[in-house]
Amino acid sequence: MRHHFLYISITNHNLFWCKNRGKEMAEKSHQEGHPTKAFGWAARDHSGVLSPFNFSRRATGEKDVAFKVLFCGVCHSDLHMIKNEWGISTYPVVPGHEIVGQVTEVGSKVEKFKVGDKVGVGYMIGSCHSCDSCHDDLENYCPEVILTSGGKYHDGTTTYGGFSDIMVADEHYAVRIPENLPLDSGAPLLCAGITVYSPLRFYGLDKPGMHVGVVGLGGLGHVAVKFAKAMGVKVTVISTSLKKKEEALEHLGAHSFLVSRDPDQMQAAAGTMDGIIDTVSAAHPLFPLIGLLKTQGKLVLVGAPVKPLELPVFPLIMGRKIVGGSSIGGMKEAQEMIDFAAGNNITADVEVIPMDYVNTAFERLAKADVRYRFVIDVGNTLKI
Amino acid sequence: MRHHFLYISITNHNLFWCKNRGKEMAEKSHQEGHPTKAFGWAARDHSGVLSPFNFSRRATGEKDVAFKVLFCGVCHSDLHMIKNEWGISTYPVVPGHEIVGQVTEVGSKVEKFKVGDKVGVGYMIGSCHSCDSCHDDLENYCPEVILTSGGKYHDGTTTYGGFSDIMVADEHYAVRIPENLPLDSGAPLLCAGITVYSPLRFYGLDKPGMHVGVVGLGGLGHVAVKFAKAMGVKVTVISTSLKKKEEALEHLGAHSFLVSRDPDQMQAAAGTMDGIIDTVSAAHPLFPLIGLLKTQGKLVLVGAPVKPLELPVFPLIMGRKIVGGSSIGGMKEAQEMIDFAAGNNITADVEVIPMDYVNTAFERLAKADVRYRFVIDVGNTLKI
Repeated sequence: MRHHFLYISITNHNLFWCKNRGKEMAEKSHQEGHPTKAFGWAARDHSGVLSPFNFSRRATGEKDVAFKVLFCGVCHSDLHMIKNEWGISTYPVVPGHEIVGQVTEVGSKVEKFKVGDKVGVGYMIGSCHSCDSCHDDLENYCPEVILTSGGKYHDGTTTYGGFSDIMVADEHYAVRIPENLPLDSGAPLLCAGITVYSPLRFYGLDKPGMHVGVVGLGGLGHVAVKFAKAMGVKVTVISTSLKKKEEALEHLGAHSFLVSRDPDQMQAAAGTMDGIIDTVSAAHPLFPLIGLLKTQGKLVLVGAPVKPLELPVFPLIMGRKIVGGSSIGGMKEAQEMIDFAAGNNITADVEVIPMDYVNTAFERLAKADVRYRFVIDVGNTLKI
Repeated sequence: MRHHFLYISITNHNLFWCKNRGKEMAEKSHQEGHPTKAFGWAARDHSGVLSPFNFSRRATGEKDVAFKVLFCGVCHSDLHMIKNEWGISTYPVVPGHEIVGQVTEVGSKVEKFKVGDKVGVGYMIGSCHSCDSCHDDLENYCPEVILTSGGKYHDGTTTYGGFSDIMVADEHYAVRIPENLPLDSGAPLLCAGITVYSPLRFYGLDKPGMHVGVVGLGGLGHVAVKFAKAMGVKVTVISTSLKKKEEALEHLGAHSFLVSRDPDQMQAAAGTMDGIIDTVSAAHPLFPLIGLLKTQGKLVLVGAPVKPLELPVFPLIMGRKIVGGSSIGGMKEAQEMIDFAAGNNITADVEVIPMDYVNTAFERLAKADVRYRFVIDVGNTLKI
C-alpha cells in the first residue's frame, strides 16, 4: 500500500489542512502524557534513515489490547513516509503497519482477546464509529480513519507503527491470528493481503472458473495470485517483461502469463478476463488492460499512481466495463481474510530480517530487490 | 449517442479491417438484390449535406416486420456519420436510429406484431444470437451487433436508417410503442432514452431517495433527469455554467443545480452523490465529478470523448469508487424502458421538423442549438 497517508488530505479536500495540523501537533506524542515507555526505530528527517528511538504509548484503555510486537512487514508506503515523499510526514516516523504480536495486557472491557493470544494490526487503528462506512463494517472508508503509522489519534498525538517493541490498540482494530498461520509470513497479509483480498470479494471476482488477471508481481501481486487461486479462479499474471514468467507459473502456480508489451500476446488474450487486480503504482497504460476484459469486466486499481492515468472511454462504454478502486478492507473482512488465508495455507513469500537491517532493506525495496516482502523479526532482534 | 459506429472497429481491435470491409461492400445495397423500393435522404460525401436518395430494402422475411416510418430523431452520432468524422462512413449514409412507425407487413413467423401496430427501432437492428451477451438479453454488447444506420447486415449490405419512408427489421429488434406514448416526442427514447435508462438500472442508481448527478443537459441529459426523477431519485444537474439553471430546476424539475466550474459549490456538494450519469462527450475533467461521489459511488460515462480522459486514481481507491460505461441497452430492457416512459409520461423535449429542414437542423445541432432533440416528421413531410 503506497497511498494511505494521502487519505487524510484527499478526504478533506485540503492538503494544507493536513500539513498544518501535522505541524501543530508534531513532537507531542513522544514527549508528553503517555505513561508506557516504548522503543523502536524511527526516521528523523527526509533522508529516511532509521535509528533507535525512545517514545511512549498510552496506557491500556478498557477496550485496548497491549501486545509485544513479534514481526512487522515492510511496505512500500513505509518507504514513502520515511522520506516524506508525499510531503505529509511529521518526524519522527516510526513505520510499520503489518504487525503481529502476542497480547500482554487487556482492558477491562475487552471481549475478543486474552493475554497470550496472537493478534494482528494492519494499516488502520481507529475510525469514527458513527458514519455509514463504520456502520457497514467498512471502517477503512471512514473519513476519520486513523492510520497505524503517521496518523493522528483522537487526542492529536501521532501514531507510531510496528517497528517497535510494543503496541496498544483498541481491540476492534486487531484481528485474531489463527493458530496455524506462521507469524512471519502471515504478517504481510495485514496490509498486502487484505488490499487484494477485499477487491476480489467486493467486485465479485471470487467465483470458481472465473478468469482474473493480476498486474504486477510484487508484494501485493504475489498474494493476489495466491488468494485468487484459492478461490478457484484462473489466474493470469500480466507483467511488462518475461523476467517473472517462470516465477509466476512455476513457483506461484499462476495458470498463464502475459507480457503486456507484446501486442500479439495481448491481442490473443483480448476479451478473456472477468476482472483484473492492478497493483502497479507507477504510471502505466490502462487501454491494453481494459482490452483484456470481457464485456462487463472490471479493472480494479489498488496501486495508486500519483499522477492521473489516461482513461480511454470508448472501450468502457462499448463493453459496460468499469475501472474501480479499493483500499485495504474493514475489520470484519480483515478477520475473514486472515481466517481464509490460514484455512488455505496462504502466506506471503518473505525475507525475514533483523531490525538493524532495516535501512538496507529500504534501499533494496526502493530497487524492488525483494521477493516479495521484507518482514522484520522485531521480537527477537529489536535491541533496546 | 455519439460513438456507436466505432463499436465495430473497437470490438475487432482493428480500424482498418472495418474500413476495408466498408470499401469492398460499399454501394452494394442500393444497387443490387433488394426488391423493395425505398426512398430517403442521404449524405453523399463528407460535406454531410443530405439530399433525396432512392435505394432498396430487403423483402419482408418470415421474422421481419416492415413499417412506414412516421418520426425519426436526430442524434449527434448522425452528425458524426454524415461528415465521416470517425473515418468509417461509407456513402451514401442514410442516418436515423430513433425511429417510430406503423407496421405495414409482417412475416409468417412474426409473433409480437400485426399490421397497424406502432413500433420503434433504435440503434441496433441485429446481433449474433449465440454469444453470452445475446443470451443474457444484452444484444447491445454482442461483438457482432448490427447498427441501424451505417452498419453491415449479415449479407454485407449497408444498413440505411430512419430518414426514409420504410424500414424492415427482424421483430426482435423492434419494440412495441405503448398506446399513450406520443410518437414524435417518444422517438428519441429509442436511443437517448435507453442510453441513460440502462445505466440508472444496471448501476443501481434507481432507488428512491438516492442522489444522482446528471452532467450535461442535452439530448441525453434532459431525459436522464426525467427518468431518474420518475424512479424517485433526487437529481442534481451539473453544468459548466449557470445558463441552464432555470431550465434544469423550473422546467425539468431537477432538485438542484451545480456549476462544475465553481469550486465552492463543488466543495459544498462533495461526497453527496450515489452516482453520476455523465453525458458529455467533449473532453472534461473527471476529478471534480469523482469528488461529488459518496464512498462507493459510481460515475457512469455515456458520452464518449474521442481522446482519453485523465483519471485520478487516489480518489477511486480511497472511496472504492468506480468509473464505468454503458451503451444503449438490450431489447428486453428497451421495451421495459419504453413501457416505463409511457407509464410515467416521460418523453423527450423535441422540436419537430420537416424532412427538408434536416440540413439546417444538423447545422444547428452542431452548435447545440436545439432544446433538446430534433425529430423529423418523416411520415408527413418526406416527399418522393
